[in-house]
Amino acid sequence: MNSPTYDTPCIMIDLDKVERNIRHMQQIADDHGIGLRPHAKTHKMPEVARMQIAAGAIGVTVAKLGEAEVLAKAGISDILIAYPVIGRDKIKRLAALLTMTHITAAVESIEGVEAVAEAGRLAEVPVDVLIEIDSGFGRVGLNPGEDVIRLAGVIASHPWLRLKGLLTFAGQSYDVPDPEAIRRTAEREVGTSARMAEQLREAGYPVTVVSVGSTPSSSFAAAIPGANELRPGTYVFGDLMQVKLGAHELERCALTVRATVISRPAPDRAVIDAGTKVFSSDGEDSPLGTGRGYVPGRPGITLEWLTEEHGMLKLAPEEQGLAIGDILDFIPVHCCAVVNLTDRVAVTRDGQFESFWNVSARGKVR
Amino acid sequence: MNSPTYDTPCIMIDLDKVERNIRHMQQIADDHGIGLRPHAKTHKMPEVARMQIAAGAIGVTVAKLGEAEVLAKAGISDILIAYPVIGRDKIKRLAALLTMTHITAAVESIEGVEAVAEAGRLAEVPVDVLIEIDSGFGRVGLNPGEDVIRLAGVIASHPWLRLKGLLTFAGQSYDVPDPEAIRRTAEREVGTSARMAEQLREAGYPVTVVSVGSTPSSSFAAAIPGANELRPGTYVFGDLMQVKLGAHELERCALTVRATVISRPAPDRAVIDAGTKVFSSDGEDSPLGTGRGYVPGRPGITLEWLTEEHGMLKLAPEEQGLAIGDILDFIPVHCCAVVNLTDRVAVTRDGQFESFWNVSARGKVR
Repeated sequence: MNSPTYDTPCIMIDLDKVERNIRHMQQIADDHGIGLRPHAKTHKMPEVARMQIAAGAIGVTVAKLGEAEVLAKAGISDILIAYPVIGRDKIKRLAALLTMTHITAAVESIEGVEAVAEAGRLAEVPVDVLIEIDSGFGRVGLNPGEDVIRLAGVIASHPWLRLKGLLTFAGQSYDVPDPEAIRRTAEREVGTSARMAEQLREAGYPVTVVSVGSTPSSSFAAAIPGANELRPGTYVFGDLMQVKLGAHELERCALTVRATVISRPAPDRAVIDAGTKVFSSDGEDSPLGTGRGYVPGRPGITLEWLTEEHGMLKLAPEEQGLAIGDILDFIPVHCCAVVNLTDRVAVTRDGQFESFWNVSARGKVR
Repeated sequence: MNSPTYDTPCIMIDLDKVERNIRHMQQIADDHGIGLRPHAKTHKMPEVARMQIAAGAIGVTVAKLGEAEVLAKAGISDILIAYPVIGRDKIKRLAALLTMTHITAAVESIEGVEAVAEAGRLAEVPVDVLIEIDSGFGRVGLNPGEDVIRLAGVIASHPWLRLKGLLTFAGQSYDVPDPEAIRRTAEREVGTSARMAEQLREAGYPVTVVSVGSTPSSSFAAAIPGANELRPGTYVFGDLMQVKLGAHELERCALTVRATVISRPAPDRAVIDAGTKVFSSDGEDSPLGTGRGYVPGRPGITLEWLTEEHGMLKLAPEEQGLAIGDILDFIPVHCCAVVNLTDRVAVTRDGQFESFWNVSARGKVR
């Protein structure tokens, strides 16, 4: 009990499983001759980004400049900022980033194009840009068609910008009922992007990058001709949300929340020292019927409800021997949100504690 | 646009409103001759704890040792740890805290009593303890009755422990339909505690502290004879959850999320640069029908759905002039969760930026 990992709640990362997950997705990309550019939002750690690149990833994806800054400082040399850059402060920060590492920026509005162009001008560095299109999620991105051609023209008018291609995010793959529906989503994602890329080429713009792929849709999207870059994120750890979608196996879930039983108010009830400030309130309950988490191999433990610092367990008869002080490891519903709530994780190899890693890009929402 | 506060998303704290909220709750406590011991989980900042104490609070409440450590180092001299202390590492940390500041610890199990007693022995400091009872929430705490008397006996057997009284948390006040139901909850909370305190006194234990009160129940609990300490937290900022419960006025909500419009995909849709990583997924939608947040005075803006880094707005016709780059301030659903997601807040006075404050006890879940 003297191991620092036992000061709970603590996020545990099984490096053997992480490596398996990284190899697994890299293999899918390699098998189809498609580039893998993992989204770093899931792990938020340069150590994991380096593992992904060492395994063959062509670079990483981030949403916010703050994430790019952390990874650039850590030596990651190819970063896609898949998010509109808007505002004076952000233009200056993007300019600084351009002098540090190779950046590709997503744009989907005139204002976004002007911002990235201004950063390029300030840094005196040409900037690669991708136009974000909406392939059915209804979040950001231009509708495919004339608007995209028009924005390509605006990009072409800026000396510091180089139009490289398109990106899209099929987030609707999280809201479909089964793998077959995810496959159809991936078909639309890739098909829409490929057709739009063709239109751009016909209009005289040399498109070389067609970037797609959420974790659920990536394995399907890789197999459909038309895209040449995948951006899955969650696959690196996996969670109950991905298991529910059929996109990750329970045995490969690499991130767990280690918690201590702190109260036994009734034979069928126990309380752990982790609530929404550790698990988050994101996403739907476990596909295994165990509430907000799942202790591998112990379906009799249901994480029934959470308050900020408490997790309430319902115990089946075979689990009622659980005592105050006992330690449990839970696979959470949404691993990205869990990582974003902790400053460090405990990494293990062969089940043994190895070290703590700082979640350096945690909370970098700006 | 050069003000650092405009680098969004940014959490804004209106100090004038914070002061009003602090005075308001202190007045309720003073009017009924009851001590106020605010829960610091809402603000997580020594600066705000000092304001509460300067206004008359008798000390503060925390859940985790990590929060107590931050506040003790910042000079807060009276801290209630309203959470079971379980585990070797935590005993040592509690012992260190006992030598720094005056700590009261909550207990509700033999294991918890042994842990606090061991910390007292290590520090050679007598520790004040409160027994936590369950007044209907069903989370932690002993059921009132013989179990409590028995635990009082165990406490009395430890030379380093001094039984001071009882505490309870009526979290069910968050799940009731109207203020009248909250009043009934407060009656049960105070009544149960007062009767249990009387039983302890009859059994020979001199009980001096009866500690109650969530933000919704506090104003009712203060008026019911039997308790002498209130522990509300959220009142200091307020949020849409409290407005829904009738426990806070919209005009007194002191915390807002400042966000920038980054995309205008359709006339009736806009996207801001803040999602669940800023707003959290906690709690139910706005009582004003505006989704996950509310822009004061602008009911035509609905924060319809969130992904991790995006907030999707539905715009009524009168709001369709909103442009990329525009700044909006949203009152969130659950302010405690929002504070826990940010490393710093921007404080304002008379609407002018004053400085950044670090959220020093953010993420202190251990």
